[in-house]
Amino acid sequence: MRFTSSPTQPFRLRRLLIHSLHLCSMAQPAAEAGRDAFRQAVANTLERRLFYTPSFKIYGGVTGLYDYGPPGSAIMANVIAFWRQHFVLEENMLEIICPSVTPKPVLEASGHVDKFTDLMVKDEKTGTCYRADHLLKDYCNEKLEKDLAMPSEKAAELKHVLAVLDDLSSDQIGAKIKEYGITAPDTKNPLSDPYPFNLMFQTSIGPSGLIPGFFRPETAQGIFVNFKDLYYYNGNKLPFAAAQIGQAFRNEISPRQGLLRVREFTLAEIEHFVDPQNKSHPKFSEVATLEILMFPRKEQVSGQSAKIFQLGEAVSNGIVDNETLGYFIGRVYLFLTLIGIDQHRLRFRQHLENEMAHYAQDCWDAEIESSYGWVECVGIADRSAYDLRAHSEKSGTLLVAQEKYLKPKEVEKLVITPVKKELGLAFKGNQKMVAEALEAMNENAAMEMKADLESKGEVEFQICTLGRSVTIKKNMVSISKEKKKEHQRVFTPSVIEPSFGIGRIIYCLFEHSFYTRPSKTGDEHLNVFRFPPLVAPIKCTVFPLVQNEEYEQVAKSISRSLTASGISHKIDTTGTSIGKRYARTDELGVPFAITVDSSSSVTVRERDSKDQIRVSVDKVASVVKEVSDGQKMWADILQIYPVHSSGSAE
Amino acid sequence: MRFTSSPTQPFRLRRLLIHSLHLCSMAQPAAEAGRDAFRQAVANTLERRLFYTPSFKIYGGVTGLYDYGPPGSAIMANVIAFWRQHFVLEENMLEIICPSVTPKPVLEASGHVDKFTDLMVKDEKTGTCYRADHLLKDYCNEKLEKDLAMPSEKAAELKHVLAVLDDLSSDQIGAKIKEYGITAPDTKNPLSDPYPFNLMFQTSIGPSGLIPGFFRPETAQGIFVNFKDLYYYNGNKLPFAAAQIGQAFRNEISPRQGLLRVREFTLAEIEHFVDPQNKSHPKFSEVATLEILMFPRKEQVSGQSAKIFQLGEAVSNGIVDNETLGYFIGRVYLFLTLIGIDQHRLRFRQHLENEMAHYAQDCWDAEIESSYGWVECVGIADRSAYDLRAHSEKSGTLLVAQEKYLKPKEVEKLVITPVKKELGLAFKGNQKMVAEALEAMNENAAMEMKADLESKGEVEFQICTLGRSVTIKKNMVSISKEKKKEHQRVFTPSVIEPSFGIGRIIYCLFEHSFYTRPSKTGDEHLNVFRFPPLVAPIKCTVFPLVQNEEYEQVAKSISRSLTASGISHKIDTTGTSIGKRYARTDELGVPFAITVDSSSSVTVRERDSKDQIRVSVDKVASVVKEVSDGQKMWADILQIYPVHSSGSAE
Repeated sequence: MRFTSSPTQPFRLRRLLIHSLHLCSMAQPAAEAGRDAFRQAVANTLERRLFYTPSFKIYGGVTGLYDYGPPGSAIMANVIAFWRQHFVLEENMLEIICPSVTPKPVLEASGHVDKFTDLMVKDEKTGTCYRADHLLKDYCNEKLEKDLAMPSEKAAELKHVLAVLDDLSSDQIGAKIKEYGITAPDTKNPLSDPYPFNLMFQTSIGPSGLIPGFFRPETAQGIFVNFKDLYYYNGNKLPFAAAQIGQAFRNEISPRQGLLRVREFTLAEIEHFVDPQNKSHPKFSEVATLEILMFPRKEQVSGQSAKIFQLGEAVSNGIVDNETLGYFIGRVYLFLTLIGIDQHRLRFRQHLENEMAHYAQDCWDAEIESSYGWVECVGIADRSAYDLRAHSEKSGTLLVAQEKYLKPKEVEKLVITPVKKELGLAFKGNQKMVAEALEAMNENAAMEMKADLESKGEVEFQICTLGRSVTIKKNMVSISKEKKKEHQRVFTPSVIEPSFGIGRIIYCLFEHSFYTRPSKTGDEHLNVFRFPPLVAPIKCTVFPLVQNEEYEQVAKSISRSLTASGISHKIDTTGTSIGKRYARTDELGVPFAITVDSSSSVTVRERDSKDQIRVSVDKVASVVKEVSDGQKMWADILQIYPVHSSGSAE
Repeated sequence: MRFTSSPTQPFRLRRLLIHSLHLCSMAQPAAEAGRDAFRQAVANTLERRLFYTPSFKIYGGVTGLYDYGPPGSAIMANVIAFWRQHFVLEENMLEIICPSVTPKPVLEASGHVDKFTDLMVKDEKTGTCYRADHLLKDYCNEKLEKDLAMPSEKAAELKHVLAVLDDLSSDQIGAKIKEYGITAPDTKNPLSDPYPFNLMFQTSIGPSGLIPGFFRPETAQGIFVNFKDLYYYNGNKLPFAAAQIGQAFRNEISPRQGLLRVREFTLAEIEHFVDPQNKSHPKFSEVATLEILMFPRKEQVSGQSAKIFQLGEAVSNGIVDNETLGYFIGRVYLFLTLIGIDQHRLRFRQHLENEMAHYAQDCWDAEIESSYGWVECVGIADRSAYDLRAHSEKSGTLLVAQEKYLKPKEVEKLVITPVKKELGLAFKGNQKMVAEALEAMNENAAMEMKADLESKGEVEFQICTLGRSVTIKKNMVSISKEKKKEHQRVFTPSVIEPSFGIGRIIYCLFEHSFYTRPSKTGDEHLNVFRFPPLVAPIKCTVFPLVQNEEYEQVAKSISRSLTASGISHKIDTTGTSIGKRYARTDELGVPFAITVDSSSSVTVRERDSKDQIRVSVDKVASVVKEVSDGQKMWADILQIYPVHSSGSAE
């Protein structure tokens, strides 16, 4: 979840990209009305069962802030625990925890103080603020939808504006707002020109009011500023990855779309530091055969669809820049599908050239399809050496790695020696700038100049700091290659950054897990969340079939075993009917129900298949544990305990 | 971690109480110099091994902000995971997650906006800020220590100031600073009068700058504002507990004492809602026989020491107010000792009457002895109905519970009817205030007035809103009790709040776990952290005894099994000497080391005893898992795998 630059907006904030369905290449799953109804059905269930609710409701709430109630909070904890297992433990990552309160210089170095902004317009009379691009987008969409008499050129223009919206400058957006006569939605008052609004929550640290601080907009900076210590901790060896899970804060101008755009959210970020000369990955072969829906740059630009690629081929064909990036694409794919994201509604979209920062090597977003369109949930970026260099410069602490050679290496080094006397005669006061520009040439440029000087005697040379070119003659500079012995190589590592918006992933998981099925009597639709046991908020319920002391004691003893095994569960001895109990717990996504109907063995029912098996009282807790921990699948359990009765009998 | 009020400071912030050792009743474990040296040795090891480090170090750091490096971060995750198992899962608590960003009205209702302050003084020339009480305390301590010629009355006075420091008003502290001629420590400039500084980080929500917000100083308020939904989620039944683990923020004036006083920290808070008429606890018997070091109010006031009490007796003797409070004392004791806090350096100290808020029923702090003295790490408070009432009033949403009667109950209700005409004649314009004060009387006061009016015909009655008393005559008010049928009882639940400062607990755990032992050659002292396997950051290491392909493959296959079981470990194939490897990992508190010295079985060494056992390659991961999960103790393992060689042989 970072911002990158594009040619038109050199440091543009990377915003949540939700591709309108008319722009996306997948088949439309349903008409818009159907999608809205589906979203509303899911949202109603989620709010009613306290998966999440607007924060501070009794005080009228604050937009963009949500609470996770008990089931939502349990899913969050389960997703984070599995993330830790799947990434941190599997890869021996160095997990750290840094504060949210961050002093200004850190975020100046990262670019957030200057450039972490959205364009805002104000109602000139009431002062109400709006996102400038939202107003323009809403205007275009509404016109296209409702103004059926619109000439086709006009329609084409509006479609073009929608397509390039993210690339428009402040002035361009302002001009379009004026041209189209867009006014404040609530009052129809005129709007101010767009101006940038910084999205960080500002505060001041300490009592004097003199230390400005911000609440971090991402967790990554805490890792970068610790690079030196972490590299030392890792025995001064590359590659290694550091990780951080924590809260991040963005003071959105006008949050909408529920959990997808909020002012405070959980990020899980990995910074994998690697030698830029060697981005191979020793475990790449473990993911190379995965077949993944990918949407490379070429397919996007040429209007094609996302396609299934074998990951190994995507890397060997150069579609994905390097093995390490490819490895993380594979691991992210496995993570998302294991927690319950539908693999057919998950794609990896490559950033277009104009989406990427100038320093970025390659970027892929894991996008998940929801009722809002394709939602960017994980960003996987090869950010080259940008972040470490920025903090090296600002802090004065070198953030570099060394490769010590076993034997000293003989290397050819470029040596550029400007001849001061000649430069002084030719350029007087500009002498220094010309000399610096000559010294700053890279190898290619220098060798080209050497050749040109030798053949032609002089060359034109562009000096950026002067804003013009000058004529360099053969006697003004000596360019040569010299052999030197080097004992080590010192370099700034590249960083490959998978960054997970946990709340967005969970929201998409809600949508992918939700379905309805008819009740036994067929007169109502019952809601079900098909959460995999791994992330389900409650793993099982324990009910005595009838209210009697004996069954209740058995239920309590099963409950104690489940607790001892760390299995979250609900015990219900109220005597509600079996059907009602199932309906209630299906709606919470509880995968297993244990009904105590004898004192020696019990019935275990699986939520989606409604299969029922019989397990002895002393084994049932460990059966539920195995299948909740992901050690076994339900199908494995059925091998040992055959189906006793199935859903149709329920 | 809350603030309470005392008679002199009606809403005083409850500060970190670190009892200077000369005030505490336990035996002094070592001289101050020894304590400082011990603390320094622990801190050096912790920083060197990246358990924690000052945040933003490359930018010069910010006081009161710390990063947890990889081992510290792993301990934090393990402590939180066990907290969830021990409290949330065991008690079926409703865990929720609320944002840190909090709008002002919520914190106005809770009292934080007005009263969450520390007294500050400013250097009148440079503007540097200091905690007023710190300066006074430092002055007294230094004088007492260094001014050996001080008259005994003067010494007694300074000791008295130290003893009552927390109860002094702003004016009293200001007067003492003037009287003693205390100046700014760095410049010797004069100081301003003390004035309150609010400790919340302030910000503004949304782009308009019109919605003031704060970063929460505790997680509890998020639970209180959700009471209505949580009560509904719990089937409208009491008692139930809600819990929240998350970051909290306090803009300390001048943080010192490392991890013990920081500006951002992890709190884990429980709000147990209970019927005020029934604070019994069904599971109290499970903790009743615990023998715990307790320091009741009576013992403190009379200058006695903390004593061992059996928890059941402490409750039945009324030392602890009720079973629910007692139950949590027992559960907190178990939690802390299971993660590795030394039971002999853990005490439960009851708040003195003047420490408690006026609304609090009873409060006990779990205090852990460290090199800084006794540190408050967990507060366990019966806060009565205060918080829910405050939010009910401010928000206008009733936060109450109902008890429905099976049969309607006949109840006697107090009826107070002021006689308006007579009051008007007697009190003219004050009539309304007198009438309201009469109606607001509680049952005792009303029945006493009724008796007095009947016997004497008139009584003096204090009217707070008038600031004086008036004479009430028999004809001015009718007081009676009437019988009514009621179908339910509506009441505000009491809340019992155990609140854990996780960072402080972890810091104390570091100190309690640290020891040194001589190296094999006896010429140096090696550092060890004796973390229990449950919380140890890394559970085991895997080393091939010698560098060869076969052992390396065995080591890798053990590593894969450990990863699959979720066991954090380090694999080291560098060929460093066994002694050095042990020294390095003992210092990280790694409890088990697996040395691969054959391809069929391996040696497992336990950190503290240095016992070594032999286990077959295919069983070793599950052995380490059992003992890391807390399912088995090392002693249990020794029953199955007898000691092969012990420390002396190492």
